Parts: sequence; C-alpha cells; structure tokens
Amino acid sequence: MKIRFKNARILTMVAGQDLFEGELWVEGSVITYAGASMTDEEVKAAGKEFERTIDCGGNLLMPGFKDAHTHSGMTLMRSYADGLPLQEWLETKIFPLEAKMTDDDCALLTKLAILEYLTSGITSIMDMYLAPEAIAKACEETGMRVVQVSGINKFGPSIEKFEERYLKLNGRHPLSSYMMGFHAEYTCDRALLEKLSDLAHKYNAPMFTHNSETRREVKECVDRYGMTPTVFLDSLGIFDFGGGGYHCCYLSDEDFEVFKKRGLSAVTNPGSNTKLASGIAPVRRMLDEGINVAIGTDGPSSNNCLDMFREMFLVSGLAMLRENDASVMSGMDVLNMATVNGAKAMGLFDCDVLAEGKEADVIMIDLNQPNMQPINDIPNNLVFSGSKQNVKMTMIHGVIRYEDGRFNIGMTADEIYREAKEIQKRLF
Amino acid sequence: MKIRFKNARILTMVAGQDLFEGELWVEGSVITYAGASMTDEEVKAAGKEFERTIDCGGNLLMPGFKDAHTHSGMTLMRSYADGLPLQEWLETKIFPLEAKMTDDDCALLTKLAILEYLTSGITSIMDMYLAPEAIAKACEETGMRVVQVSGINKFGPSIEKFEERYLKLNGRHPLSSYMMGFHAEYTCDRALLEKLSDLAHKYNAPMFTHNSETRREVKECVDRYGMTPTVFLDSLGIFDFGGGGYHCCYLSDEDFEVFKKRGLSAVTNPGSNTKLASGIAPVRRMLDEGINVAIGTDGPSSNNCLDMFREMFLVSGLAMLRENDASVMSGMDVLNMATVNGAKAMGLFDCDVLAEGKEADVIMIDLNQPNMQPINDIPNNLVFSGSKQNVKMTMIHGVIRYEDGRFNIGMTADEIYREAKEIQKRLF
Repeated sequence: MKIRFKNARILTMVAGQDLFEGELWVEGSVITYAGASMTDEEVKAAGKEFERTIDCGGNLLMPGFKDAHTHSGMTLMRSYADGLPLQEWLETKIFPLEAKMTDDDCALLTKLAILEYLTSGITSIMDMYLAPEAIAKACEETGMRVVQVSGINKFGPSIEKFEERYLKLNGRHPLSSYMMGFHAEYTCDRALLEKLSDLAHKYNAPMFTHNSETRREVKECVDRYGMTPTVFLDSLGIFDFGGGGYHCCYLSDEDFEVFKKRGLSAVTNPGSNTKLASGIAPVRRMLDEGINVAIGTDGPSSNNCLDMFREMFLVSGLAMLRENDASVMSGMDVLNMATVNGAKAMGLFDCDVLAEGKEADVIMIDLNQPNMQPINDIPNNLVFSGSKQNVKMTMIHGVIRYEDGRFNIGMTADEIYREAKEIQKRLF
Repeated sequence: MKIRFKNARILTMVAGQDLFEGELWVEGSVITYAGASMTDEEVKAAGKEFERTIDCGGNLLMPGFKDAHTHSGMTLMRSYADGLPLQEWLETKIFPLEAKMTDDDCALLTKLAILEYLTSGITSIMDMYLAPEAIAKACEETGMRVVQVSGINKFGPSIEKFEERYLKLNGRHPLSSYMMGFHAEYTCDRALLEKLSDLAHKYNAPMFTHNSETRREVKECVDRYGMTPTVFLDSLGIFDFGGGGYHCCYLSDEDFEVFKKRGLSAVTNPGSNTKLASGIAPVRRMLDEGINVAIGTDGPSSNNCLDMFREMFLVSGLAMLRENDASVMSGMDVLNMATVNGAKAMGLFDCDVLAEGKEADVIMIDLNQPNMQPINDIPNNLVFSGSKQNVKMTMIHGVIRYEDGRFNIGMTADEIYREAKEIQKRLF
C-alpha cells in the first residue's frame, strides 16, 4: 500500500539530524521519502499517487521502538508469583508452569504480547522463549517483526535441534529471523557452552545470553570457574563473532574490556531489574565507553508489562540515581538506545531510522495530549513525560497494525483474551 | 445526576474488603450503594431510578487516586531546563520564570495540569503554587478537587496575607480547601518559621512542607541549626497539630520519632526524586513504623508528568532496589498509599474509599487492554502493569469529568493548549 503522511513533525533518528516539520511516504514495505513538506500539486508533479493520505496534524513520526529483550509468551504469568527474587521465582514458579505449555499456547500468548507491544509503539522484538517455530508463525501471522534468540540450556533442546532451528528459522520470512543464544551461564554446563562456541565459529554467528543480572549469578560463576560470566564465556570463544548480554547489572572492569573488544551489545532491562530487586546497570559508563546499549522490557512476568515508555523513563531515572547526577542522561540518549541501538543489537540494519530505502517501521506520537503540552522539548517530553497513551499509530513493514486504539493483526483482541483465559484455566 | 454502574468489578479499598463483582450507585455527589449486583427489577423495587446506567462490562471501579504533592502550574516548564540538580534548577531557571507569571497564567496552566490528572485517574490534588485564589477558581471551574497548601517563604507573601488566605480559601466551595504550609526550611528564615508556628497554634492547624528532599538540604540545615529539618521544625512547635513532609528521602532515626509522635504524613515523590537524582525515600520502613505514606507526582517540571501509574510502579520498584528484596512491596500496599493514605494526608476523609455516604470520586479501569490480560491479580496488575491508557473514566464529586478520552471541564483541551502556547510565547 502507498501511504503519504503529511503535516508531520519528524524525528528520523539519523545521527545529527534535528527534528523537522515535513512529510513521509511509504510504498510497500519501505520508506520512499522523509523530508520537507510538499503541496498536493508538487506530489502529483513528482508522479506520485497514494492510496491513503494521513494528515498528522502536527503529530510526531519516528522510528518504532526496538524491544531488545523479552519473553513474550510469559504474558500468561503476568502478576503471578510477584515478590520473589529471581532464582526462586524461576525455579519454583515459572519453570514448572512452562513445562506444561504447548506450542499453540506459546503462539497465542505471544499474540497477546504483540497487542501490548503495538500499544507501546514497539515494532521489533528480540524474543527468547519456548517453541520458536510457533513464535515465528505467530509473529508472521500478526505482522510483528521478530528476532528470536535461542534460550537453550542444560534442560534442552539438543544442540542438534538448536542448529536445525538456526538454519530453518532464518530466511523464511522477511519479518522473522533467529540468532544464536543460550539462557544463561548458570543454566548451561561447560560442555554445552563449548558446543555453542563451536557453532558460533561454524556460522560466524553473534551470541546472546542473560548475563550478570544479579550479584548472586556473578558470585556463583566466580565460585565455579574463577571468572565472571562475561570473562568465562569469552574464554570459551563464545563471543568471537559478537553478540551481547541481557541485563548486565554487574560488570567488572575486565567485563567492560570484553564488551568493547568483542563489540557486544548490552541490553538493559530496568523495569525487571527494579521489580526483581536485581540492581541498576551502569548504563552511563557503558555509553561513555562506546558500548552499544539497547533497551528491553524483559518478559511480562518479571516486569510486568511491555511498555517502552516506562523503560525509557527508568533508564534515565535510574542512571541519575546511580550516578547521583541529574544531568547524566538526556532524552535523545535514551531515544537512541530505544531505536537505533536496539536495531543494531538485533541486526536490523534497515529498521533503525526514518530515511529513504529504510523499512517502514514507523510510529505516530500524539502530541495533542496534556502530558505533551506545552511543547518545549519533544525528545525530553517523550522520555520524561510520554506514555503509551501517546501512541496513535504503529506501522511495521509498511502495514498499520495499530491505529487509534484499534488492532489489525488478523485476530481481534477479544478473541486473544478469551483464548488466553482458556490457557490460564487449563494450566494454573 | 443519578448514575448506576452495573456489571463491575469493585475494589472499594475498605480495609479487609476483597475485590468483588457488583454495582455502584451515585446520587448527586455521593455514593449511595456499593455492593452485590442487582437485577433491573430489584433496582426498581428498591424505588431507585437512574438518569444513566453504565454497563462496566466487567471493568474495575475503584477510588480515584490522590496526588498528595504537586505544583500544577509548572506545566509551563515541562521539559524545560532538564538535567540540573534541584537547587540550581530552582534558583537559575524556575524562580526567574515564575516571577513573570500572572494569576491568569497560573489558572490556565493549572487547567492544563487538570487535563493530565484526569487522564491518570487522579481525583484530588494537594497543590502548592503561586496565586492560590486563581488556582482555587480554576479547580472549581473544572471540577477538580483541590487541597491547596501555602508555599510561603522568605520572598513572600506576608504572614498577614498567609492568614487571610487560610481564612478566605477554606469553606468557600465543596471541592476546594487550603492548608497551612511553607515552601521549605531552606527558603524560610527562623523568624518566619516562628510566626508560622504561632499560626498553627492559633488555628490548631496541621502544617506541610518540603522536607529532607536532598542530602544537601539536610546537611545545610544541620550546619545552620545543629538539627535536621524535621527536628528543627518540630523544635519550633510547627508540627504540634500534625501535617507532613514532601519527599522525605533522608530521615534520621530521630526524624522517624518526630513523624510518629506528631502523626505526620510522609508524601513520597519517586518520579521527581529519580529524575533530579535526589534519592530514594525509605518507604518500607515508614510503613513498618506506622507512618502514613502517601504518593505525589511533584510538579510537571521536575517529573515531568502527572501520572500516578508511573509513580506507583516507582514506589514499589525503588523500595525493592533500596531494600534489595523483591518482596517488600505488594500491589495493595501501593494502592493504599495512592488512595486511602493520600486522602488521610489531605484531610479528605470522605474521599478515601467506595462506600455508602462517601464522596463519589470514582475511576473506571479498563481491564480489556492487553497489559491487564490474562487476569491473575488485579491489584498487582494495576501497580506493576497499569498505565494511564487503562483509565476509562474519572468521576469527581459525582460528575464524570473524563470518559473514553473526552474531557468535560468547561473548556476544550485544544483551547487550553492554545492558551498555554500563548503564555509560553510571552514568557520564554
């Protein structure tokens, strides 16, 4: 479909480009123009015809948010077993329930999460969960862009299945890809990690994992191997082709060196880290040292929501508290993490900014809401005042999937709620 | 107007009463029934007729949120001069701009804030700002319930004006009252504080102030008087009739004793405290020691929004980080602070819960949004997953002021935005 967005403010997120008033064209799945406003006559003279023209009324267009770490299917366990520390919560509550989930359950619960992503302007997710084939299908059916990451661990799947999925789940659909990863150092034994390193080398593949989320995790790894998780994993060659870590609350100086040497991304998850009392990641230092920092919501059972606006405020606010300095993080710093850096971490190099030839993953932010008025500084408004309520539209791959509260994902929200309730009745 | 809400879930916030399915009646400004569902025939047999019946479709009714500390008129400075520490921000940016604001400016900017409160389900505000007469009028015109608190300091107004306002701004309108207060120890000299203490004694009045917001504030008071702000102010008799403190990030053991002895409320402002890098208040300890803890957004220039959902998540998340324990704060703990405790701090004893005879300050929460599904635990969903987007309706004093995104406050949102922009052009 060919869509013209006119009368917009545009924040392209192209480095060095200021917010401007203009218009944006989408043709098929790509952006074909993002620049100054034109008259209808000028558009016609350029030989362009659009099936739909949207008058943005001065509202803001920007790249969709990248949720660079989540476990979508955990919607089932939202507000279930709150108040437990990470390890106990996983071992006594989450793992037993997950053992009962079918692939179809996982697909439906992923769709429930997708509804929520869309309401928050999230256009790509880096998802680690059970049943990758079913998740890929759910994302393809609903039009969500997904980069899945394997969560292999000592309980499964086999290393052969891991490799098979890596080959099978890449290249099958433009919205869906699959990256190498594993759950965490503490849920994998050394032999498995060595096999994973072999596969990273076989395919020159970056590798992602939960890393240094809690003090306990780091301490136990040091007790086991005499090294921090980052240094230990790097010693196995696992990060020889890059990748990254989720959480990264506790990094040593040596860990920082590994992140820089290997070009690893650090994905911060402040909602989950506060709610599970895990800690505050050293995000300002990461940025200062040139590490690519992206933002993830983590799963909806540890957060408990999938809201990039809450994460963005937390990224800045927690950095200020940690560094005891109100000036350590600007709105633009955080927006960069939530868009460009996220795209880089996920390998979505065509989805990072609004520019000609880029994928049309675009959101419209309603500036005509009281929390955005008066307009002094739009990037700061987005990060410090913004809310999901300001998301007027979410477009992925050129298709509007959410607009003014209505979804366009092939199933109604009510159907998804009803099926989720059935799963809940069956499994709890 | 007589309104019947049927087919609702109801969280009355009455101590010990669980959430139930039922219905609620509002007649005039008060609640006349909150209980089990009735058939239309039973309602008729009870001799009741309603002008409007709202089918809640299973959505939640609960008491409106109490924003127990704010500076509404600071909407003008939203996202203006972000990134500065508290004292520098106040002295170099905020005070010079405020000196140029007229009473009419203040009224309009308060109305802009009121739009935002309504979108977040806030039905009462404890407001400290310039031009109290104009603020009272703005609140009365729009239907917002306001408890104003004087922000007197050494720059004005006179103590005579202070007393005159106290007498004039109480009893004039059912939605509007005025309590004694002053800006902070560090902006008042001792002679002024002694006069304030005399007035507290003359009227048996509780007294509110910013208190122990930053380390610097506490240190400077100790340097000046050899006592913390709480102990110093109490030594002057200022808290002999109760009252409370805003922020309260840094309280000594002795301060805790003063809070308990005088029955002071502590109003926590986590959004502002993170964004200005002020610190984390010891909220868990306050609750454990029986102190009445309420929640405030603080003003929209230091926060920068007026969103009780963000504050509620922060109250819990920051307590967990501070105590290094994910179990220290439940959803119900936080909801209590945001409703019942706030009403207590503000002296709004008829606005705390949903029960027969109470003021009809009621909100409806949309549970048919993806961030609330599936429903495992509604109070935890509200605090850990909730957002302004879930606020379907805000009723104050029996009048629906916000419903499905539309306002009913005597002016349109666009008129208010336009006038705010004019003020911005004139003053910046």
